Amino acid sequence: MRKDKISNAVIRRLPRYCRNLAALRREGVERISSSALGKNMGLTASQIRQDLSCFGEFGQQGYGYNVDTLYQEIREILGLHRQRSAILVGAGNLGRALIRNFDFVDSGFRLEAAFDVRPELIGTEMHGVPVHDAAELGPYLETHAVAVAVLTLPPQSAQKTADLLMDKGIRGIWNFTNFDFEVGEEHAEVVVESMHFSDSLQVLSYLIRD
Amino acid sequence: MRKDKISNAVIRRLPRYCRNLAALRREGVERISSSALGKNMGLTASQIRQDLSCFGEFGQQGYGYNVDTLYQEIREILGLHRQRSAILVGAGNLGRALIRNFDFVDSGFRLEAAFDVRPELIGTEMHGVPVHDAAELGPYLETHAVAVAVLTLPPQSAQKTADLLMDKGIRGIWNFTNFDFEVGEEHAEVVVESMHFSDSLQVLSYLIRD
Repeated sequence: MRKDKISNAVIRRLPRYCRNLAALRREGVERISSSALGKNMGLTASQIRQDLSCFGEFGQQGYGYNVDTLYQEIREILGLHRQRSAILVGAGNLGRALIRNFDFVDSGFRLEAAFDVRPELIGTEMHGVPVHDAAELGPYLETHAVAVAVLTLPPQSAQKTADLLMDKGIRGIWNFTNFDFEVGEEHAEVVVESMHFSDSLQVLSYLIRD
Repeated sequence: MRKDKISNAVIRRLPRYCRNLAALRREGVERISSSALGKNMGLTASQIRQDLSCFGEFGQQGYGYNVDTLYQEIREILGLHRQRSAILVGAGNLGRALIRNFDFVDSGFRLEAAFDVRPELIGTEMHGVPVHDAAELGPYLETHAVAVAVLTLPPQSAQKTADLLMDKGIRGIWNFTNFDFEVGEEHAEVVVESMHFSDSLQVLSYLIRD
């Protein structure tokens, strides 16, 4: 796999392939042509073939793709089988919603702990996930190998917490703070993936015709 | 404005322009060159000029862009000044997080009501937003002009609720259900903007190097 050469647009489509293939599997579909898969995804058959050719040879001329094989292969390309360790910082409404309802395991991670400043939350468990004192975040990261941190705290605390996480060697931050914190050059390897809710709603505002 | 001719990629960058320009305004910056703005946004000066030329003439050669004017213009292009009416369906943890913490007004909408099936929530107010019985959703839409519905309910209820919303003339659905519901041809004008949390985390999984 030549990770560096694959365009951002292709990478961002891979989870959509997964979702579509998972739906086909549930419906009991065993194989699918690139044109049928493209129709499901709003892409042309040739785009599908081009996307998947970045990662090797998947389909067979005249047969199409085996749904289950392709599904498993894409999950492996995404690294979802690795089940890397994740923590969550900020167990408010949004943090709680993710802890209770989001399927971390299906997206490649084990959520191992949450951190919060509120005394009434510290020491409790949410959906099996222990909530620790936010003051323990640094020491925790020194003794646990954590790959990713989910940031679900208020924007005012985002930069300080992100700095701590990066200093302690976190490799990815899933950012829900709606704040673009700075990533210093010394942390250029850290991957920040932001869920900017407002960007999405503003695009919706634009697309609605009057 | 020639809405139809503007590429999806440009539209999706507009909210990022807004965020960057808002930050510059807060810092008291009055004007900025396309190369400096590009640097902030990870784009080239010529991409910036190209993006903005889709909407008319904004900058001045040798002067750059007036930060406040450009900010206001982009907000207007996005329709954020319209303050259209929105409702939210599903006042669980995620719905509550949005009601309490998300700035709908800043993204162009007034959140007027929430709907839920849980008796203990019906008739209450969350952060000033009344919570109605989900059974009242249809009648409500017949008597109120609602532009957008925020879907924050379990995936099993997504299709049925989306069908009702579309039948009642909703123009946009902001979908947090992690489910791609079907949009019939008779509703082809409805804009669906999905926040697929799993897509984002799976991309993060991919981008983390081992």
